[in-house]
Amino acid sequence: MTKLFNFSAGPAVLPHAVLAEAQADMLDWHGSGMSVMEMSHRGREFMEIIHDAEQDLRQLMAVPAGYKVLFLQGGASQQFAMVPMNLLAGKTSADYVNTGHWSKLAIKEASRFGKVNVVASAEDRGFSYVPDQGVWQCDPEAAYLHYTSNETIGGVQFPFVPDAGKVPLVCDMSSDFLSREIDVAKFGLIYAGAQKNIGPSGLVVVIVREDLLGQAMPGTPTMLDYQVHANADSMYNTPPTYPIYIAGLVFKWLKEQGGVKGMAAHNGEKAGLLYHAITSSNGFYSTHVAEADRSQMNVVFRLKDEALDEVFVAEAKKRGLVQLKGHRVVGGMRASIYNAMPIEGVKALVGFMGEFAHQHG
Amino acid sequence: MTKLFNFSAGPAVLPHAVLAEAQADMLDWHGSGMSVMEMSHRGREFMEIIHDAEQDLRQLMAVPAGYKVLFLQGGASQQFAMVPMNLLAGKTSADYVNTGHWSKLAIKEASRFGKVNVVASAEDRGFSYVPDQGVWQCDPEAAYLHYTSNETIGGVQFPFVPDAGKVPLVCDMSSDFLSREIDVAKFGLIYAGAQKNIGPSGLVVVIVREDLLGQAMPGTPTMLDYQVHANADSMYNTPPTYPIYIAGLVFKWLKEQGGVKGMAAHNGEKAGLLYHAITSSNGFYSTHVAEADRSQMNVVFRLKDEALDEVFVAEAKKRGLVQLKGHRVVGGMRASIYNAMPIEGVKALVGFMGEFAHQHG
Repeated sequence: MTKLFNFSAGPAVLPHAVLAEAQADMLDWHGSGMSVMEMSHRGREFMEIIHDAEQDLRQLMAVPAGYKVLFLQGGASQQFAMVPMNLLAGKTSADYVNTGHWSKLAIKEASRFGKVNVVASAEDRGFSYVPDQGVWQCDPEAAYLHYTSNETIGGVQFPFVPDAGKVPLVCDMSSDFLSREIDVAKFGLIYAGAQKNIGPSGLVVVIVREDLLGQAMPGTPTMLDYQVHANADSMYNTPPTYPIYIAGLVFKWLKEQGGVKGMAAHNGEKAGLLYHAITSSNGFYSTHVAEADRSQMNVVFRLKDEALDEVFVAEAKKRGLVQLKGHRVVGGMRASIYNAMPIEGVKALVGFMGEFAHQHG
Repeated sequence: MTKLFNFSAGPAVLPHAVLAEAQADMLDWHGSGMSVMEMSHRGREFMEIIHDAEQDLRQLMAVPAGYKVLFLQGGASQQFAMVPMNLLAGKTSADYVNTGHWSKLAIKEASRFGKVNVVASAEDRGFSYVPDQGVWQCDPEAAYLHYTSNETIGGVQFPFVPDAGKVPLVCDMSSDFLSREIDVAKFGLIYAGAQKNIGPSGLVVVIVREDLLGQAMPGTPTMLDYQVHANADSMYNTPPTYPIYIAGLVFKWLKEQGGVKGMAAHNGEKAGLLYHAITSSNGFYSTHVAEADRSQMNVVFRLKDEALDEVFVAEAKKRGLVQLKGHRVVGGMRASIYNAMPIEGVKALVGFMGEFAHQHG
């Protein structure tokens, strides 16, 4: 078959080298006689796998001392509850920035556990930008300040890390985790569902400052208490072993690619090509996202003539360019170009877009 | 290397045919050009995978109409909270049977959300038996009656399905799910962590009678509300797609093996061989579990001379018989012989046990 480029927003394309290694190891990991799926999570072999995964992630992100790295389940959606249940810590309210679909869900869930103060919202302009921090109405007494660094559906990405002062900064980094350098020390807690830049779904990575642990509200289920998982090094119960193994392979692959710094350059180049194809199309393609806040991970765009949407998707598919249909909430097109999307995929898409515009323009 | 037989209590051995198919499909599932891990969970391909998995499971267990089958995350440990949070339904208490380590954890967690009435406990005799239902102190007004059909650590298995009258019967079936025929119509809710008889860890299967949905207590996190997942056909958020795919392959394999009925015969034969080796060893090996309640899944036994434990484990390992050390809570040995353990593995173990007893007896 034609080589396929998969622009899915998640679960998403994984590095070919990672899948090839997983394939080779499927029946017998490193001479153990077992598949990773068959290993006791408390056995020597898997302990080595999870240890290496954590160490590689710590190295990739330069996680400072005083932070726990947790491998949990339930996706970012479960974090929407775990964050307030664990971090409200007796305070009455938390600050949230509303930049789109995923922030809204985080805000809705948090509201069930405490008062949410929306410090800024981009809803006034269809979630097409990141509100300037100068206008945020932050509460210096807030339990924490939460934001979504990249809105997968809207295609909006924070070009800066907010300054939260003494308030712990919490970030849903699901869709741009490990895609650019960040200073972990600026954060109280970072969480990221795995199925975009880390590995398979069914795993969520949490990086949390240790002083924030141990204050879960009464009635928090044991499995939703960060302290429980931190005390047990993510082994309170059986963790999602195979997704952790694949994540570990992705981390090793990232190190070989020049780490997060290498990825950031690669991602910038890919996004640059694609946005250039959109903005130089004489209006055949367009994006509603403010230039400074355009996502390097999810490139959201529209065709001038909406009636061509289906043709575009079908023709692209014939070229092996799949999963380009935009999320139903915003319509149009979306090309997700996470770390594992090779530049050849983006070039193929840009080439196709040019031809399509020429044919139908 | 020597062919290995893995007696791990979970994650545990998987059918070779399943792993071989997963290996063949790793880079390109059925000509899709994608690994299953790379597929959008809402795409046609994965929708087919999860649909087939559900239908095969329904067929294997003859799940009647009026029951939802859910593929969730968080393992049985998260179910320990979800069950009371969803099923107390305004009632004040729930009934629990205490047959060992896992019942105790379920009871402890449920106690955080309501009153728990322990209707019977086998703690008086070191959790070596299942209390006769004649002596249970059940509350006809209980929200539900909970039991653990197989205690993975203690090696005790219910030889009967309790009669709960009009009270919904809830079962943690993690370690004997799909190992014998059961009448799902007798249950209000069944849950099972995948990593014993279903597939990889990171997946928990829930089968729930529809009339029990929709009554989650206030403060239940959205992700812990069965109704939310039932309404979305397990797609409220991204499900653990790869574990679901592997579970689906296991379900197909089970159908080829004669279904649950075929497995029950196979499991009975395996357990019979092993218990015979123990009870006919003139006391060199022994099991503390009452004869009628001996688990067909986790065969727990001791050596007469505890000082030989380490030698036994080391010698067994040399023969490719691994993960035989008992759980630290009970000591001794444990051979977990789930569906996927071939009879050759049990025969090899029995052969080794005979030789070892001969040498050291």
